[in-house]
Amino acid sequence: MDQKAFQDQYKDQYSVCYGCGRLNPHGLQIKSYWDGDESVCQFMPEAHHTAIEGYVYGGLIASVIDCHGTGTAAATAYREAGRSMGSEPDLRFVTASLHVDYLRPTPIDAPMELRGKVEEIKGRKVIVSIALSSKGKVCAKGQVVAVQMPDKLKRD
Amino acid sequence: MDQKAFQDQYKDQYSVCYGCGRLNPHGLQIKSYWDGDESVCQFMPEAHHTAIEGYVYGGLIASVIDCHGTGTAAATAYREAGRSMGSEPDLRFVTASLHVDYLRPTPIDAPMELRGKVEEIKGRKVIVSIALSSKGKVCAKGQVVAVQMPDKLKRD
Repeated sequence: MDQKAFQDQYKDQYSVCYGCGRLNPHGLQIKSYWDGDESVCQFMPEAHHTAIEGYVYGGLIASVIDCHGTGTAAATAYREAGRSMGSEPDLRFVTASLHVDYLRPTPIDAPMELRGKVEEIKGRKVIVSIALSSKGKVCAKGQVVAVQMPDKLKRD
Repeated sequence: MDQKAFQDQYKDQYSVCYGCGRLNPHGLQIKSYWDGDESVCQFMPEAHHTAIEGYVYGGLIASVIDCHGTGTAAATAYREAGRSMGSEPDLRFVTASLHVDYLRPTPIDAPMELRGKVEEIKGRKVIVSIALSSKGKVCAKGQVVAVQMPDKLKRD
């Protein structure tokens, strides 16, 4: 894709997240992009991300859904404001709640694709629903309620 | 504690989980124990488990809630059956759904304590609610719906 990932447009001080921070060398460094009105993220699990042999750990699935959700919320807020991502003032989101339904085991030997849809935008809150597929089948569905980061947490 | 952790009584083939498998050297290796009718787990986050500087990543919180929940479900099923954990036939649980409400940022420089309570036992399903505290304050609340592992996933 020729777009820049949402996460590559976060300010440096918000780029240490274990799930999506480009400056966290130990982390997952997921990358999310627009595909029309949906957001998309591909992530290849590592061999040690097992639940039982052959299948992906549910906590990893929750983690990528979480970061893809907050990333989609931030990108949506910029889009709604008619601004390019990363422009000032900063629009950065944190997770208020996360829900994941595990529909079937997710194979560990294939990339997972997450597709996000914005369900609701209300004030500082954005609700994103996410379907996670692998090998052409939806394996998990998630919902992230993201809220704009409170000022007291901001790092300037 | 002089008890053996729930996870240290899982069979070897179910001990490769990234969150709780004692045989996964890359994983979190969480340990859960009974404290009366509650299950308890202490986990010290590592420096790279950041969300933003100073605070724990929400995906890690979801991960420890997930594994503490399925561990509590398994321990409960053995307790209900009047059997010692690890005895045959095996009672191992997977996550059907996971919900986490993030109430306040979780400091990264202190151990997190998770306390689980069994809310419901119905057939092959056990529902566990979990409160995660740090520095004496509840930072997140979770609910895990765990179901006995389907036979097709069993590794014998």
